[in-house]
Amino acid sequence: MRLSQYFMSTSKQTPREGQSVSHKLMLRAGLVRQLAAGIYSYLPLGYRVLARISTIIEEEMDGIGAQQVLLPSVQPASLWKRSGRWESYGEELLRFRDRKKGEFVIGPTHEEVVTQLVGAEINSYKRLPVTLYQIQTKFRDELRSRGGVIRTREFLMKDAYSFCRSEEEENGNYQQMRGAYGKIFSRCGLDCKVVEADTGPIGGKRSEEFIAISPSGEDKLIECSTCGYAANLERAVFKIEKEGNNSVKEMRQVPTPGTRSVEEVSRFLGSHPRDVLKSLFYQTEKGLIMALIRGNRPINESKLKSVLKVGTLQLASHDLVKEKVGVEVGFAGPVGLDGYQVIADGGVMRGRNFVAGANKKDTHLVNVNPDRDFQATKVGDIGYPIMGDGCANCGHVLSFRRGIEVGHLFYLGESYSRSLDVTFLDEVGKERYFVTGCYGIGVSRLPAAVIEQNHDEAGIIWPKEIAPFHAVIIPTTERTFAPSRELYYHLKEAGAQVLWDDRNVSAGVKFNDADLIGIPFKIIVGDTFLEEGKIEIKLRREGTIKKMTKNKVSQGLKELLEDAR
Amino acid sequence: MRLSQYFMSTSKQTPREGQSVSHKLMLRAGLVRQLAAGIYSYLPLGYRVLARISTIIEEEMDGIGAQQVLLPSVQPASLWKRSGRWESYGEELLRFRDRKKGEFVIGPTHEEVVTQLVGAEINSYKRLPVTLYQIQTKFRDELRSRGGVIRTREFLMKDAYSFCRSEEEENGNYQQMRGAYGKIFSRCGLDCKVVEADTGPIGGKRSEEFIAISPSGEDKLIECSTCGYAANLERAVFKIEKEGNNSVKEMRQVPTPGTRSVEEVSRFLGSHPRDVLKSLFYQTEKGLIMALIRGNRPINESKLKSVLKVGTLQLASHDLVKEKVGVEVGFAGPVGLDGYQVIADGGVMRGRNFVAGANKKDTHLVNVNPDRDFQATKVGDIGYPIMGDGCANCGHVLSFRRGIEVGHLFYLGESYSRSLDVTFLDEVGKERYFVTGCYGIGVSRLPAAVIEQNHDEAGIIWPKEIAPFHAVIIPTTERTFAPSRELYYHLKEAGAQVLWDDRNVSAGVKFNDADLIGIPFKIIVGDTFLEEGKIEIKLRREGTIKKMTKNKVSQGLKELLEDAR
Repeated sequence: MRLSQYFMSTSKQTPREGQSVSHKLMLRAGLVRQLAAGIYSYLPLGYRVLARISTIIEEEMDGIGAQQVLLPSVQPASLWKRSGRWESYGEELLRFRDRKKGEFVIGPTHEEVVTQLVGAEINSYKRLPVTLYQIQTKFRDELRSRGGVIRTREFLMKDAYSFCRSEEEENGNYQQMRGAYGKIFSRCGLDCKVVEADTGPIGGKRSEEFIAISPSGEDKLIECSTCGYAANLERAVFKIEKEGNNSVKEMRQVPTPGTRSVEEVSRFLGSHPRDVLKSLFYQTEKGLIMALIRGNRPINESKLKSVLKVGTLQLASHDLVKEKVGVEVGFAGPVGLDGYQVIADGGVMRGRNFVAGANKKDTHLVNVNPDRDFQATKVGDIGYPIMGDGCANCGHVLSFRRGIEVGHLFYLGESYSRSLDVTFLDEVGKERYFVTGCYGIGVSRLPAAVIEQNHDEAGIIWPKEIAPFHAVIIPTTERTFAPSRELYYHLKEAGAQVLWDDRNVSAGVKFNDADLIGIPFKIIVGDTFLEEGKIEIKLRREGTIKKMTKNKVSQGLKELLEDAR
Repeated sequence: MRLSQYFMSTSKQTPREGQSVSHKLMLRAGLVRQLAAGIYSYLPLGYRVLARISTIIEEEMDGIGAQQVLLPSVQPASLWKRSGRWESYGEELLRFRDRKKGEFVIGPTHEEVVTQLVGAEINSYKRLPVTLYQIQTKFRDELRSRGGVIRTREFLMKDAYSFCRSEEEENGNYQQMRGAYGKIFSRCGLDCKVVEADTGPIGGKRSEEFIAISPSGEDKLIECSTCGYAANLERAVFKIEKEGNNSVKEMRQVPTPGTRSVEEVSRFLGSHPRDVLKSLFYQTEKGLIMALIRGNRPINESKLKSVLKVGTLQLASHDLVKEKVGVEVGFAGPVGLDGYQVIADGGVMRGRNFVAGANKKDTHLVNVNPDRDFQATKVGDIGYPIMGDGCANCGHVLSFRRGIEVGHLFYLGESYSRSLDVTFLDEVGKERYFVTGCYGIGVSRLPAAVIEQNHDEAGIIWPKEIAPFHAVIIPTTERTFAPSRELYYHLKEAGAQVLWDDRNVSAGVKFNDADLIGIPFKIIVGDTFLEEGKIEIKLRREGTIKKMTKNKVSQGLKELLEDAR
């Protein structure tokens, strides 16, 4: 492609809307442009990267026997009502009515459509297992889209769905898919961590995420450098520090005027926050409950939900707590609290001599002891890990990292086949529910994740397999324009993915643009060509230079590509 | 691919929902399944055809320097309001509100988005011309989706948009695109006709359609076999039969009780329908008008609109006509009609002694003569062609054909760049509007159009370039199963797109399925192999058989493919 004719707009300025390194670089390199909040256009350079990523995905999916399909974006509400997700999915599910007043959604995911399809087409175990996949546009009406193309409302996704006879067969499928994902991300040049994850609105029994490690990622994870355990923060299990064997002291009431938060109370009383009991009221479909956790640990509401076995959970407002319980928020506590379930985090039960609200305004209790002074209705793991927690497997201190979720594997079991009531006949002619799994890759966020891990001050450094072009030919003087053109047509004919910077701009601008847009090799036709008859190839990642005669460039480029990352 | 593991569902039964040959065959061959009215899933076999068509399109678009992008499906209403199409597009434009109550549309086409994008990125003539294209999912909320995948609500489209400095440059682009379209459709195995067409909701100055000729197509066209003139019926110009030079007779009133339609009146009075004046009232933004045409010719409302220069046009209801004009529909006529514009078709002005409504119940006038008995406010071409009309170029009698619109080229001029106010600076630094064109291909309807032209009683006959697989290996006996497997892996390794029918079904079923799904070559490992050591290759289109030894099959297949259509 001749750059003078290419629809590329680079910019030296860092755009104000850029939220992260990748976002800024994608805007500066002209890969994408925002049309509306969370909705982006992919320009030619950006689209080429998406196309290369898609090709890698297709090769690896085909390699494990998955079959490509194209399912509709617009889906009838009836199907979502049958699966129950019309109710449960929340406002991210974009619902609308067509001109005949029929209810529809724009698909945020395709479990319903594909499960119904497979159920209608396959009635015998003989045709199982089968895995279908597509690379297709999704819409999720996110309240806050973030990080450029990382969390958008409209996005391109690879979603795969497998249908099996048994858990065992699905486990095999899952492992195969996990292996393919590893290859895909590695071919894209990504350093990923596989972590245990929460299942969210997709549901199912368990799930794992592929996280591209990056300090600007919105996903948090813990990792054990000793045994390799890793998990999304939502889902993390851990060991908490051991307690000293303090002796139990006598409980007494102390005035704490105007001190409500854990920070205020611990400062006022000179206690460590871990010795203050955080007592929070939540509203659930089973009524108001109190969750109890040590003051230095945040509550993980998704864990609390599953300990309580409830579907909805929301922090109760001050007014509601005052009206129903008769207590001011900030001074509530478990001692003497009647008529409400108290769910205590495991860590609470091992502590001694806590500070807790006295259920009386401007007053706390000190030396509160579990079992002696209050009873927990239920004890469970309802907290997030904090610095200092140990690995649940091996006890080693956990480290905290951030990253970008690029892939997600779900073991769904029979959840969708049961809710949509689709079955097959097994070996003995018995009706059975399909055992299923689903597997996503955020295709259009991958370029951003790759850039987060592959850039320097000058711009993007594309890994070779997803680079929009492999090389850019740069004539640096007027006298080398003609030989550079000749080289361009020669390389193009030889099948190389090559740009020719034939623009009437300075060599400096050409170099800067080539660096910014991250082309792996700059083929420089300049002084060295005039003096020694040699072309220079400069490697974007390494910064090193290879010299060769013009007729060796085609072969030289091939060899460099083979060696490159 | 092993057929035993392939997600393919063929059926011998003709499905009840099948509306056309292609629809029936696509359902029987398991290429698509309907999810909702006008919304289809593409199964693996169907998707492979779409993917091959997309590859052809990409090759030909890249060949003329068009650059691929990916634009959003969900678009803000504000942009459509600026272009004016929020109002003018009609109910096919799917409008919705997101969770923040913002107004959006699902893109039925992308002129707004791309014009705004190019306007923001390009400010100088130096970077023109540029053509961007995408292959992307569109949604048009059609009231009646028809013909299987031919007229659907959700569909895959290739849309290209070009931006030029001048009309001349855009004309060059247009011709290049027209050439590329010809190649694309020919590579898809389609016999197409290029016709002049109406611009519809896209607008612009003129347009041409590529029509795949097919008796079951919903598009009608006329064609002159002498000079080659062809046009969509909407847009067709033509010469009407000459009149005899009848002498003008005296007008008189006749009772015509209960006869309202042209058919009833002409039967009752013994006149030919062409001698009866059809007088229809239309509502427009300029008020009620009367359109006048000879009884044997339908009114072309799109032509009427442009003669009247109005944006909206709708046949007035009986009640409205009665209330406003004081006349019963069926007895209205131009004679003595005061206060209303009368738009007469050209053919009316050349006739003599017409029958027309007398503007009085149960009464007509005979021997009504234009100019003598009434004056037309405006005379223009407002009719559709009918049998017997002649070519406007050469006078030869036109023939009528049907077909499926597969491509559409629009010369838009400055329409969108003006309405969205996007400009560039020309050679002398003057602000100028971009001169634009847009170019569509109905990707997901192409398989249906191809099938309409390429099938027989046994099923589909895929042209080689878009066949989902090139060949299917069929072992016909248990003894040839092992050698057929060996051949499969051998061909697969050699890079052939090949299916292996390893299913435990009769040879008859295998042959029937291979014919139904339209695979160009059946590689039969059967009796001939056992007897003579030879493999048979049966050509789907020709029905002929080539015999060769097993080790010649790979080469033989390549040669057959080169020769095939």
